[in-house]
Amino acid sequence: MSSRLIGVGVGPGDPELVTVKGVNALRAAAIVVVPVMDTGERGRAEATVLHYVPAEKVVRVVFALNERTDRARREDAWDAAGERVAALLRAHDSVAFATIGDPNVYSTFTYLAQTVAALVPDTVVESVPGITAMQDLAARSGAVLTEGTEPLTLVPVTAGSAVLKEALAGPGTVVAYKFGRQAAEVADALRETGRLGDAVWGTALGLDGESVRPAADLDGGPLPYLSTLIAPPRRDGGRGGKL
Amino acid sequence: MSSRLIGVGVGPGDPELVTVKGVNALRAAAIVVVPVMDTGERGRAEATVLHYVPAEKVVRVVFALNERTDRARREDAWDAAGERVAALLRAHDSVAFATIGDPNVYSTFTYLAQTVAALVPDTVVESVPGITAMQDLAARSGAVLTEGTEPLTLVPVTAGSAVLKEALAGPGTVVAYKFGRQAAEVADALRETGRLGDAVWGTALGLDGESVRPAADLDGGPLPYLSTLIAPPRRDGGRGGKL
Repeated sequence: MSSRLIGVGVGPGDPELVTVKGVNALRAAAIVVVPVMDTGERGRAEATVLHYVPAEKVVRVVFALNERTDRARREDAWDAAGERVAALLRAHDSVAFATIGDPNVYSTFTYLAQTVAALVPDTVVESVPGITAMQDLAARSGAVLTEGTEPLTLVPVTAGSAVLKEALAGPGTVVAYKFGRQAAEVADALRETGRLGDAVWGTALGLDGESVRPAADLDGGPLPYLSTLIAPPRRDGGRGGKL
Repeated sequence: MSSRLIGVGVGPGDPELVTVKGVNALRAAAIVVVPVMDTGERGRAEATVLHYVPAEKVVRVVFALNERTDRARREDAWDAAGERVAALLRAHDSVAFATIGDPNVYSTFTYLAQTVAALVPDTVVESVPGITAMQDLAARSGAVLTEGTEPLTLVPVTAGSAVLKEALAGPGTVVAYKFGRQAAEVADALRETGRLGDAVWGTALGLDGESVRPAADLDGGPLPYLSTLIAPPRRDGGRGGKL
């Protein structure tokens, strides 16, 4: 009989930002896998899951989620994690995988599902949406993401500053994810495009150590990988970031 | 004493796609305002709210949400709705406004908050994120929104086909919202950019009459305004739409 692998988005950190559907999916699954990362930013999905399901049902699996890690090592870690999850799927009828944010937005779940589909071909893959960090930062800072006919572009800083600058030259809000050592380049791109003044930045949303600040207050030094920046366009009489 | 206006994202239609925080905010508010639209697509937010709070606490307010409506009439409707909500805020310490999707993504809440801020200046405005239709369509269709260093661009079809074509020429997933008579232009743009084959379209997600289909199967005729299209980029060995 085929088993189900359900990617459940558990939101950016605040345990209340899981959907009712997500809570039900975590509770209905035989086993809930939580990714344990090789960086300091571990345990975010795990902490949220433990809010809703007993620890006995939670299986910690080491994933190397950090994009700064060497690609080959990351792929090895994914494969090993896939083998582990495949073994769980052979033993249980349903396995939930908890992922921060949304399982279809820059999530390890995408790679896990590919690996598992190769190992256990009859697996039924499903996902339950989750609140992304940009949505939580918008709510916490008062920055409106889009209105009217504005587009919205989400850019990982790891894509390089050319992609970011092109988006910033356009008419809509730009959201930057996946920070790190390129923080100074992001600040330069915001300054060059006249977007620094209205931009807001945040990290550890809903967690101890939460920080939400105007981007203009950042000093240009490295920022946590799991940072989010929202740069709204100029709006006529608009309500931009309220910070 | 100042009152609180809380925009609560109630997701695209499935009542289970409200967050725990959203449910708590709806239940904690003295009054929950639900927008009643001037189109056939009314009652979506209302139906979700009635899943969680008693009807006695729900106030229906007419908004003209349909972007095809004449701009002046829409603004009049917003102003009248703002007056109504302002009156509620003068009488109650907290008023929740339920909005489909997310209150900071193409939401009437943005305009409502502006109007109310002018009428009741000491109002404290807050928002609670909600699942957007693109996230629900990704989950229901198996289309991955973003992976790796891919950008994501969200484009309202009402912005014109040039904006859509420019996004489709780029390297990331393109999501189109706010459909209608321009559906044929969208199909043309997808065909010209080689993206038709992998694109998925959906409407009435989580509701009676839900439809999720490959974009290639659409006949080019008008589509519901509240439609969503996801056009993923070509991915090496990737898992695109699973339809």
